[in-house]
Amino acid sequence: MRKVEVCLSPELIHLFDLKGKIVVVTDILRATSCMTTALAHGVKSIIPVASLDECRALGKQGYVTAAERDGKKEEGFDLGNSPLSYMDPTLIGKTVAVTTTNGTQAIVKSAAAHEILIGSFLNLDAICNYLLSQFQDVVIVCSGWKGHSNMEDTLFAGAVGVVLRNNGYLSQQDSTDMAIYLYILAEKNLEAFLANCSHARRLQNLDITDDIAFCLTLNKYDVVPVMENGKLVSKQKVVV
Amino acid sequence: MRKVEVCLSPELIHLFDLKGKIVVVTDILRATSCMTTALAHGVKSIIPVASLDECRALGKQGYVTAAERDGKKEEGFDLGNSPLSYMDPTLIGKTVAVTTTNGTQAIVKSAAAHEILIGSFLNLDAICNYLLSQFQDVVIVCSGWKGHSNMEDTLFAGAVGVVLRNNGYLSQQDSTDMAIYLYILAEKNLEAFLANCSHARRLQNLDITDDIAFCLTLNKYDVVPVMENGKLVSKQKVVV
Repeated sequence: MRKVEVCLSPELIHLFDLKGKIVVVTDILRATSCMTTALAHGVKSIIPVASLDECRALGKQGYVTAAERDGKKEEGFDLGNSPLSYMDPTLIGKTVAVTTTNGTQAIVKSAAAHEILIGSFLNLDAICNYLLSQFQDVVIVCSGWKGHSNMEDTLFAGAVGVVLRNNGYLSQQDSTDMAIYLYILAEKNLEAFLANCSHARRLQNLDITDDIAFCLTLNKYDVVPVMENGKLVSKQKVVV
Repeated sequence: MRKVEVCLSPELIHLFDLKGKIVVVTDILRATSCMTTALAHGVKSIIPVASLDECRALGKQGYVTAAERDGKKEEGFDLGNSPLSYMDPTLIGKTVAVTTTNGTQAIVKSAAAHEILIGSFLNLDAICNYLLSQFQDVVIVCSGWKGHSNMEDTLFAGAVGVVLRNNGYLSQQDSTDMAIYLYILAEKNLEAFLANCSHARRLQNLDITDDIAFCLTLNKYDVVPVMENGKLVSKQKVVV
């Protein structure tokens, strides 16, 4: 029987044996929502890197660059971390090098996995359908905020967890149960639920409320971003 | 304004600045429930140590010893990790050296705090009343299970979090909000709620269902266990 686990913070990833498993990395506000949006709007591929320096170096090689730290766009890069900015038609067919405070770090730390997918509410069903079509155990890695768990990533983990559990996957850790219970509480109105949480309140102060509303939209895109040879690309759609 | 934070696993404790704060360590099943019970039933003090060797060495110095690993009593020690065993009248006035899989490790890792308290459902109100009588920020450290978060410690953190938040403490991390929401879901019937969770299901296989029911009893004891010079003792009752 397949298993599903939830890793509540990249700082806990060493506790999980990722070998042979599919990891779904999520950073709802906003890195993985950006990546989903970018690939859905025709960006060819995305190179997630941990440091600003690596991102800058790729910029010199001609790649489009995107960099965010502490919720804000870094100076000297083409893009920040707003999903709306990835709808720009001039990005179609391009490769974007991306570094963010949390999300890209979680991707880098998941390297031992059989396969790394990028999940967000924007492609929730696409991710779940792909997972169900495979025969691997699943670990959902929440990017959190500087090592701390956050609510929105946990809720996404819960949303995936509900679907997998309803399809017979075993929950292996209480963190999975925690995420599922929280999602069931929140799912009727994600935005209102998150408005009461500490981290989203901090983000609202950054004047990105349009981004937040967009990132909490369910199933806008039917893409499955997957890491292949160090780049995120859109996986060919798999029919279950 | 005072703040309350929840650390969901001892593996995340380095993210918290404990200086000047009161840490409440919890390991509901069963280390901190044992410690609460022991002090309430007349044990003079408890020495929490991280390793079996340290515990054994203290045994040679004449202390009563208690050791648990993976939920089971270790051979060659006087006691295991059942709270019921601490009701033994022959333990009155004695000092017990204790090592457990998770709880004592969390205590050792919290050394930087202004003060370390031991919390369980058995002394929930006593802990909350003491915290409210102080002027320090609070960090609730969940011991979890081998680095993973578990539901019962998170629920206790939520129970304390609800009381502190209702008394004007600010929640500083989403982990606090997560714990509070989960506790509100669970509080009507903690035992039934936990029966559905992965970790408690595993513990039930160890044939400790009486212990579990006991550890989920609210406010049986009015003691506030506090670390003083490397030993846990019962704090004099403070009237708010």
